[in-house]
Amino acid sequence: MTQHVVIVGGGFGGLTAARRLAREKDVRVTLIDRQNYHLFQPLLYQVATAGLSPSDIATPIRHLVAGRPNVEVRMGEVTSVDLANKRVKLTDAEVPYDTLVLAAGVRHSYFGKPQWEGDAPGLKTLDDALEIRRRVLLAFENAERETDPEKQTADLTFVIVGAGPTGVEMAGAISELARYTVADEFRKYNPRTARVILLEAGDRVLSAFDKDLSHKALESLRELHVDVRLNTRVVEVTGEGVKLENGFLASRTVLWAAGVEAPALSRSMGIETDRSGRITVNEDCSIPGHPEAFVIGDLANFKSPDGSALPGLAPVALQQGEYVARAIVARQRGREVKPFRYLDKGIMATVGRAFGIAQKGRFKITGMIGWLAWLFIHIVFLIGFRNRVLVMIQWAWAWATFGRGARLITGTTPVPSPTERRGLRSVNSPVKAA
Amino acid sequence: MTQHVVIVGGGFGGLTAARRLAREKDVRVTLIDRQNYHLFQPLLYQVATAGLSPSDIATPIRHLVAGRPNVEVRMGEVTSVDLANKRVKLTDAEVPYDTLVLAAGVRHSYFGKPQWEGDAPGLKTLDDALEIRRRVLLAFENAERETDPEKQTADLTFVIVGAGPTGVEMAGAISELARYTVADEFRKYNPRTARVILLEAGDRVLSAFDKDLSHKALESLRELHVDVRLNTRVVEVTGEGVKLENGFLASRTVLWAAGVEAPALSRSMGIETDRSGRITVNEDCSIPGHPEAFVIGDLANFKSPDGSALPGLAPVALQQGEYVARAIVARQRGREVKPFRYLDKGIMATVGRAFGIAQKGRFKITGMIGWLAWLFIHIVFLIGFRNRVLVMIQWAWAWATFGRGARLITGTTPVPSPTERRGLRSVNSPVKAA
Repeated sequence: MTQHVVIVGGGFGGLTAARRLAREKDVRVTLIDRQNYHLFQPLLYQVATAGLSPSDIATPIRHLVAGRPNVEVRMGEVTSVDLANKRVKLTDAEVPYDTLVLAAGVRHSYFGKPQWEGDAPGLKTLDDALEIRRRVLLAFENAERETDPEKQTADLTFVIVGAGPTGVEMAGAISELARYTVADEFRKYNPRTARVILLEAGDRVLSAFDKDLSHKALESLRELHVDVRLNTRVVEVTGEGVKLENGFLASRTVLWAAGVEAPALSRSMGIETDRSGRITVNEDCSIPGHPEAFVIGDLANFKSPDGSALPGLAPVALQQGEYVARAIVARQRGREVKPFRYLDKGIMATVGRAFGIAQKGRFKITGMIGWLAWLFIHIVFLIGFRNRVLVMIQWAWAWATFGRGARLITGTTPVPSPTERRGLRSVNSPVKAA
Repeated sequence: MTQHVVIVGGGFGGLTAARRLAREKDVRVTLIDRQNYHLFQPLLYQVATAGLSPSDIATPIRHLVAGRPNVEVRMGEVTSVDLANKRVKLTDAEVPYDTLVLAAGVRHSYFGKPQWEGDAPGLKTLDDALEIRRRVLLAFENAERETDPEKQTADLTFVIVGAGPTGVEMAGAISELARYTVADEFRKYNPRTARVILLEAGDRVLSAFDKDLSHKALESLRELHVDVRLNTRVVEVTGEGVKLENGFLASRTVLWAAGVEAPALSRSMGIETDRSGRITVNEDCSIPGHPEAFVIGDLANFKSPDGSALPGLAPVALQQGEYVARAIVARQRGREVKPFRYLDKGIMATVGRAFGIAQKGRFKITGMIGWLAWLFIHIVFLIGFRNRVLVMIQWAWAWATFGRGARLITGTTPVPSPTERRGLRSVNSPVKAA
């Protein structure tokens, strides 16, 4: 009998599972995603900082499973899952399943202050990245027109909240944008005076890495003139800037990279989640009491043998996607399924255009070598041959010239009038048809 | 004494004038544009049909005049020109000038029915192109979810109004998209059944060309399965489709390519314009009675010696930009200025991926050779070396694989619920902050 597997989410985990299951004859797959593309999320900050174009890091999901007749792709938003009746509910339909693979990922979290989102967008989707790019580039344009020196300073102050990989990568890239790429392009001010401030509540940057690597990354950020402030907690975000426990930073561009949480979907299912809404799973990635429902990738709270939860990394999602596909097939054939084991691929991050850190167990690299390793691995894993070639050319060109090719301000109302400027923060809210 | 030249518009005409004047010591230039980028408009339809990315055909204006200290770029929207007091008014400021070069271009025109725009977007800006791309790609997605066969047919019916170069190019590209690129990617219908209907009020396509070339282009369109309907006038456009004099075409995706008009700016100046608002100019491109104010490019109504107006073509704008820059310098030095003469560069258009037509006087080419000529000329003229290389690679790749690399649905609310679907048409309206 053909088994119907519904996969929610076309990210690393969901796509891997779908492609693996596509080879099986007695399995039919429906892959549901809100977007029509698979996104190479590790390079999303490059789109947000105008280094790459959206199509360099995104590929239509349909294209990635074309020629696999047992995989059906459906663009849609899942609002809830009815585990008891084995149905996935979309805004416009319901899809029944025999087996479910939930790989819906996470969103950025404002720690109970969702009202900050308009003034401090986060970076999870292509549209997020385009909105951040728009704001960063507009800030330089607005500063050129601004006659009030105080407001000009606020235009030229970029605050990034959270010093994980995304925050560190954005801070480095924006600082380089100001100091090199646009340095000669303005007449009323010197872009090199722009301030990039990276706020971190903890006591070091990139806390997933060992302390010595965190320290080297911090030094590298400071060499790039990023003003890193550790042990600094954000009290309030407004259209005027960021309020700290000990002061106020006037800034027109605040970006959020300070944590993630599961979509509302996960809490609505009436099952066990962790504090950020990630779904607690068994050692075979299934939901306790629901062997036919798996959760993988960032949305899963998978406990390692040592008791810690696996981090939200692409290699985890890829391996879990591969694992559940094999588990689904094995079960159907009545074979036993071994628990999932994560094979540690290490972690890496970059600061600017020539510094990277990488760590795998006790093996560590830093500096230019770390950056080249980062570059190599990211290009190798970019899905789709065309993208790899294009991205390599763009990077080689950008590296040689300090240029950033995608510096386009697109989207709504490019030039706000002065009275509208405060309203900038609300353009990211969903546009409802009248 | 330094002369202050204000140029409105960073298209082919305005940018050429700015770059030419940048060499002069006693001239100071302010270049104003609504966008931060120069757009290579002849390839805009490629973005609208997912063949190229925005950054392939757009370059930041500041980058194009970087290192020219006497050129200042200002992002802003010009609302009116006070010719008597020599001031350009922006939404947020006024800029005085000694000499004005108006190169603001034109918008598409709905022949007195601006209310059609929401249901039938036109193609003049990058944001227009992204909106069209979003609608075209969403139509295929919506058809996959649609269970009502009549509505599915409407989802798969693309109507393009106007068979000038833009309409013909879009029709050919959308037909190829359906028949080749996405042909294997849907399960609930066969994308090859999609209908592309090109409506033209006149009696032939591409009427700027000689009749034999129009005829060959028509044949080529029909080979691509484009349903071309000549002598067909649009009576009404709604969210449900297009009403004709003799029937109704149910369609969810109507695109407008049927004419242009000048922005409101031109009529507000109290000077002579033609029916579409283009400003009538003297033989030196200046406004009658205002030797210090020039109009160039699509916005100018420049009468050729034979009495016909010059067409809205890139070569006209480029030559006029060069001409007014030389005229401004010559006058300042007390030298005489000869009238502007357009050196005919010919005209060209393409249909799909292997057919082009080109005509210069009595010299004509068609077919694959015409297409290669078109390709060569467009790549040579693409401003910015990086873009040329990237575009060539993308085209070579797309040609070999029938792929279209930029098939991403970005922008507002990717998946409309059924009740919202009719509302799709309003998402292109400007978003105002609450």
